[in-house]
Amino acid sequence: MMQVYPIGIVRYWTEGKHTKNTVQIEIYDQFSAGLKGIENADSLWILFWMHKLSEADRKVLQAHPRGDVTKEKRGVFALRSPMRPNPIGLTKVKLVERKGDVLIVEGLDAFDETPVLDIKLA
Amino acid sequence: MMQVYPIGIVRYWTEGKHTKNTVQIEIYDQFSAGLKGIENADSLWILFWMHKLSEADRKVLQAHPRGDVTKEKRGVFALRSPMRPNPIGLTKVKLVERKGDVLIVEGLDAFDETPVLDIKLA
Repeated sequence: MMQVYPIGIVRYWTEGKHTKNTVQIEIYDQFSAGLKGIENADSLWILFWMHKLSEADRKVLQAHPRGDVTKEKRGVFALRSPMRPNPIGLTKVKLVERKGDVLIVEGLDAFDETPVLDIKLA
Repeated sequence: MMQVYPIGIVRYWTEGKHTKNTVQIEIYDQFSAGLKGIENADSLWILFWMHKLSEADRKVLQAHPRGDVTKEKRGVFALRSPMRPNPIGLTKVKLVERKGDVLIVEGLDAFDETPVLDIKLA
């Protein structure tokens, strides 16, 4: 059995003015040692669990490119569609700032409260 | 609970002459519909399960950059080290050829028999 678990969570801003394209990634206490030195990175890969997809969504194997129904369906492995058997999202982000266990990143394509699975140096 | 399952498996060549840097990815029957149109792709992201890592490896949060012990340890999220809480590997490959449910790819950094979790258009 292959099980994954969150190392952190996406938090949208709740107040104040911020560059609209930035979000916060809060890393859980028990994983914060894994952040050592990350403040020197420019770009990071964020792997996250697309928690809004259902079990039924995981069974969808073909979709219209970019949801455009005028285009013929293609296999999900030939697309960037969120629907796929393992709902793991992947986005390259710019690291704007590290504040303790919180990373402020630009360009993350994930909903508020998305579980984060992994971060890799890009 | 967040569970993933393999959509296919990495198969090294067992015979014949091949470009040394290519491997085969065999997609399981029940997921082959997800390959439709993939033959037109140049590059793909392969997400795979690093099956040789142990549960103990998943608890390692800091490592030497590229295993170089003369360098100070950094957090695994600031590295490309295979050790990390969720052992998901990520490599961008060149699609050389599709042969039915088998993809011949160049540049995959994964062992023989590695479970493949996802393929995304790069």
